[in-house]
This record gives sequence, structure tokens and C-alpha cells, in this order.
Amino acid sequence: MLKNYLLAPGPTPVPPRVLLAMAQPIIHHRTPQFSRIFAETKNALQELFQTQQDVLMLAASGSGAMESAITNLFSPGDEVLVVNGGKFGERWMKISAAFGLKVTELRVEWGKSVTVDAVRQLLDERPAIRAVLVQASETSTTVVHPVEALANLTRQRDTLLVVDGITAVGVLDIPMDRWGIDVLVTGSQKALMLPPGLAFIALSERAWKRTKEGKVARFYFDLAKERDNQAKDTTAWTPAISLIIGLRESLAMIREEGLRRVFERHARMAAATRAAAHALDLRLVAPDAPSPAVTGMYTPADVDGGKLVAYLRDRMGVTFAGGQDQLKGKIVRIAHLGYMGAFDVVTAIAALEMALVHFGHRVPLGRGVGAAQEVLMAALPE
Amino acid sequence: MLKNYLLAPGPTPVPPRVLLAMAQPIIHHRTPQFSRIFAETKNALQELFQTQQDVLMLAASGSGAMESAITNLFSPGDEVLVVNGGKFGERWMKISAAFGLKVTELRVEWGKSVTVDAVRQLLDERPAIRAVLVQASETSTTVVHPVEALANLTRQRDTLLVVDGITAVGVLDIPMDRWGIDVLVTGSQKALMLPPGLAFIALSERAWKRTKEGKVARFYFDLAKERDNQAKDTTAWTPAISLIIGLRESLAMIREEGLRRVFERHARMAAATRAAAHALDLRLVAPDAPSPAVTGMYTPADVDGGKLVAYLRDRMGVTFAGGQDQLKGKIVRIAHLGYMGAFDVVTAIAALEMALVHFGHRVPLGRGVGAAQEVLMAALPE
Repeated sequence: MLKNYLLAPGPTPVPPRVLLAMAQPIIHHRTPQFSRIFAETKNALQELFQTQQDVLMLAASGSGAMESAITNLFSPGDEVLVVNGGKFGERWMKISAAFGLKVTELRVEWGKSVTVDAVRQLLDERPAIRAVLVQASETSTTVVHPVEALANLTRQRDTLLVVDGITAVGVLDIPMDRWGIDVLVTGSQKALMLPPGLAFIALSERAWKRTKEGKVARFYFDLAKERDNQAKDTTAWTPAISLIIGLRESLAMIREEGLRRVFERHARMAAATRAAAHALDLRLVAPDAPSPAVTGMYTPADVDGGKLVAYLRDRMGVTFAGGQDQLKGKIVRIAHLGYMGAFDVVTAIAALEMALVHFGHRVPLGRGVGAAQEVLMAALPE
Repeated sequence: MLKNYLLAPGPTPVPPRVLLAMAQPIIHHRTPQFSRIFAETKNALQELFQTQQDVLMLAASGSGAMESAITNLFSPGDEVLVVNGGKFGERWMKISAAFGLKVTELRVEWGKSVTVDAVRQLLDERPAIRAVLVQASETSTTVVHPVEALANLTRQRDTLLVVDGITAVGVLDIPMDRWGIDVLVTGSQKALMLPPGLAFIALSERAWKRTKEGKVARFYFDLAKERDNQAKDTTAWTPAISLIIGLRESLAMIREEGLRRVFERHARMAAATRAAAHALDLRLVAPDAPSPAVTGMYTPADVDGGKLVAYLRDRMGVTFAGGQDQLKGKIVRIAHLGYMGAFDVVTAIAALEMALVHFGHRVPLGRGVGAAQEVLMAALPE
């Protein structure tokens, strides 16, 4: 008998309350009944995004919302600056290239955060750059990029800041309006604690203006059309009805906990995981700017990271993520986002310790767990 | 946000597979469709009880099946010997008294196991005793009684051995036929991983003979009537349909894991929990004959056990059981039965450590967890 623990950076565990809501019989979407639910979620999404703008709901995964940003804002030949420090930076590059944009790549060493100076320098050198595309949390390298500082830069120019917040929205504080982010994207299967299938995107005023100029061909992801429909509490195409019904519950859970406390919980789980890595002498992939959504650790030289991750998943029931491309076989990534709490961290670290020992790397059992507990203790109520 | 961990000795967590089966639309019980399910479960229950006898399914909690043993086997004035070493020993006394039996009590110090010599001596002194009533696992004191040795004694006399196996069947090896147990009882909400509401009872040949003499008035719990109905793949009264549908799944899970491995898993989780108690200097309630279903530990003198259990439940989301009666406020009971595995033990011990520290009792965080991991490691597959 193997109990399963989903501790990868998406999909994340879905709370029973959300599962039950989604298990209700399906209802029709062109009804007042659905429109009421839709209206409720669209308002709650504005709180989550910390914006006055419409947050559009697309029946798509996060990559669909990333594509919609490109296809609605730009024309073929437009130049964009892509911060490429991992698999999802690469995705911005690929989407941009697919639609004929001219991409200026700012390569960032995997595990590092982009520097604001490097972005400023490029923007100064190449005034044709129409937007900076970046990840708030680069899931593949477990790094956060300095979105607030980048926004300080872009909002003073005619340059949009387009942010992939897929593992950031609902994890760390990225107040869209206050910072002046132009496009913010997320997906359902991360901090929103839902199955995959819904993506969300919000645009600033000036980004909406740009959509009028954008000449890339588009149909399904026509954001202006979605905005018109959303104003009438409906969607352009058939929405992912049960996911939106689940979304109402997960947004209610986030509201009940309070956004500040949600951010604190994620920060604490991440700090506890890093403390465990330190106690176990495991080097962090992103020591300088670690993401509160997911922690990457290099596996010891004597342990194959790929085998470790497979063993944890197949024989111990614990699903972490491994490394991709140049980090393949070298790291484990332990997520702590969404419907997760102290004992998910404890389980993750205990499982990691046991698996390391199983592969012949002698760590003292309980040492990493103890270090994590020390951090988690701080949040115990009176 | 508080995730809930149910680590009390019943009800125990219900596996998703079982929950999904029970969530199907209700079907009618007087149908070939239900009879097929019923037939399947009654056969699988014989494997679980390790008996050739019918295992009857009652829409009742375990106490109902205990009552049925008394009301079907005895007549008012019959003398029975009750091994009373905890709350459930007391329950045998109360049920026996309620139906006018003459009870000879063999008191056992809480936390201790009954000795076979003490039972033998009483049976020798009082030949009128018609049965010995005992718990295989006394949940309140986390002790196991020596059922095999007691059966060696009773099967050589005209004395029935009536065993409450509510936290024992599916946890430890109690082969009913091989040992010569006369009555074996269990409930759905323990090792069977179901919600409460179903109870099970099997009788030996000689116990069935006794039911013909039993003069206690009975109606709902008429076991001979249930047996007649069960032979036709139905029940005397309306069965708990969805629980029986869930039972088919949980019995399938037990069969897939294999009874031996189920017993080993429980033994290992219990050993790991005891190792943690030892590492944390917490005294066991039942050091000599501890149950593999649940482990009792005395809380340190400086910590109120009742407050500890309430804090763990209400503020940390971790439900243990406390002590009852003379043990009230003095112990915690941590269950490891049913749908539980290594990381439930890890969560239990990590939570206990953190709660102890919260109440000012300085244990080294991670020390108990490490000791538990050491034991759990032994079961990791290659």
C-alpha cells in the first residue's frame, strides 16, 4: 500500500472542499446560475491579482495565457526582451518566435536572478524593445526575478512588463497595479489549488491600448472579446465550468486565510525547506533569490538525482520534480505551494532523508526534519 | 489554513478509492446487482477473518456486534468471565450485565495484558463459566491480550472464547479457525478503512450450537436469521448499502496488499512509533504487550495531556486520542491502523515534538522522527 504525496510544483493537491464542489452535477454556462458564480470569481480574482483590471479566465493551461499575451499585444517583427534563465524563460522565447517577434535574449545563469542593471542596459541600447517578458518565479531553477524593480524600470518607458506569474500569484506578493505590471498571467494548478485547465490573465490600461495595435493573427485567445463577454458575466467560448465552480471555493479559502497569511505560509514553508537542505549539507540551486513556491537542491555527488526522484515517486509515493536539461539528474525540486502546510514539508524532508540513505548517502535521519520543524514552530498559534 | 490528519484509533482515514466507490448513486439492495457485491464481500471477509464460517455484516457499530454476541449465545443467569483491563473490557461487563448475565470480572491493571494463568485459575475455580470475553487489542490502554494462548485454554473446555477484535482484525494475525476462537467481532471504521456503520461477527461451530440455547430476548441482532439471509446473498434488514459497496473496495485493497504485508506494515508503524517515544523519553502505557494498532505514551509531568491533545487537534490539525478515566489528561494515543503508512507516523511524531516544545517541554526537534525513520527505513523496497 502506497499513499501518494504530490509535492511537485504543479499540479498541486486539490483540497477536499474544492473537489466536492467540482463533483456536483454539471450546470449550463449560459444561465443566470452560472453567471452568478462567474461574477463572484471574477471579483475575487481581482483581489488575488491586486488589480482593478479585469482578470480574464481562459479554458487553457498557463502556456495558453502566455501565448495570448504575445498574440494580443504585438505584431510580427516587434522586438521583445526575454529574460531567459530557465525552461519558462525559454518558453517566452519560443512563443515569441512562433509568432514572428524579434527576440532579444537576456541569458541568465540557471539558478541566478536577472539583474536590473542588465535589463536597463539592454533597454537603453535597444529603444525598439516593446516589452520585457519575464517569470516572477522561474519554476525550473527555483529562482525569483526582481519584478518590482523591473516594473520601476519599464513603467517609466514605453516598454511593457509581461510577467509569467504561474508559480507566483497567490504565493508571493506581486501587487499588479501598485507595482505597475502590464501583464500578469497565472494558471489554475498551482497556488489556486485546482486541477489544470484554467488560465488567468490581466492587462494594464496601456497594455489594453497595445492590443488595438497588435497584428498577430488570433482567434481563440482574443482578449478584447473575452473582456467584452466577461463584462456580461460570461465567456466568449464554452468555459471550463466545473473548474470555475472549484475556483469559487479555492478563492474563498484564500480569502478566508487572508492573502498576507497565504504569503507568509509559503515563505515559511520555503524557509523550513531551505533550513533542512542546509542541515543536510545539500546545496541550494538558487541560494541568492530562492522562490517561495519550490526549493531546488543539488543531490550529493554520489546520488543520481533522476534515480532518486523516480525511487521517491514509484517506491515511496512521494512526487518531487527533478531537474530539466542542464540540471537533469542533478537536482530535486520540492514544492510547497497551494494546499500545503507544515506536515507536507515534514513529509518531504523525511522522505528525502530516507531516500538519500537508501542510495547510500548517510545523512543523519531526522536532522533535516528537525531543522524544518524549528522554522515551522515559529508559526504555531498560542 | 489547517490540513487535517486523522490519527486516532477510529474512525480512521478512508482511502480515495473507497470514497469514490461510496459516492456512486445508491442502488437497491433487493437486486441481483447488490447481491453480487454482497457475495463478493462475504467471501473476502472470510479471508480477512481467516475462517470457513460465515462472517455476518450488521448495520451497526462494533458495540452492536458485541451485543449480538451476548444476546445470541447466552441466557439470563449464565456466568461469563470478562477480562477487564480497560474501557472496552468494561463494555463487555456492561453489555453482559444489561442482559442479566452473571459476570465474573478479572481485573487487569490498565496497560497490562491479562495472564493466561489468571484466566486458567478462574476457569478451574468456577466451572460454571460459559465463556471468556476479551479484547484482542484493548484500544483504551493500547495493550494486546494473548488471544492464542487463551484459545488454547478455552477450546479444551466447554467454554467459549468471545473476542472483540475491533482494533485487531486486519491489524495483527488472529486466525480465527486455526486458533479456535469462538466469536470474533470487528467494525468498519478501523483497519477496514471505512466510515463507521458496519459491524462484523463470525461464530465457530460450537458457538452456533450455543445460539440455539440462548434465551436472551433479541430481534434486530438475530444472528441465525442473518446467517439464513446471508446464504441467499442478502441481509435480514436493510443493509448499509454504500458502506458495503465501499467494503468491497477496501477488502480488495487488503487483498492486493496481502494480509501478511498488512500485518507487517502495522507492526512496523507501531515499532517506529515506540522507537520515537523511547528517543523522546516518553514512557509507554503498554510497554510489555503493545498493540500494533495504537501506541499510548504518558505525557511528561510538566505537560497536561488533555491540553496537548486539544492543541494538536484544534491548532495543528492533528487528531490523536487522549486518555480515558484514570488515564485522562495523562497520555496521548497515536493510532497507526488502516489507511496509514510511513509518513503518517512521521507526521504524528513531528507534530508531537512541536506540540511538546510549544508547551515548554524541550525535546530536540527531529529526534523522535529520526528514530521512527530508522525503523521505517527497513521496509523500503530495493
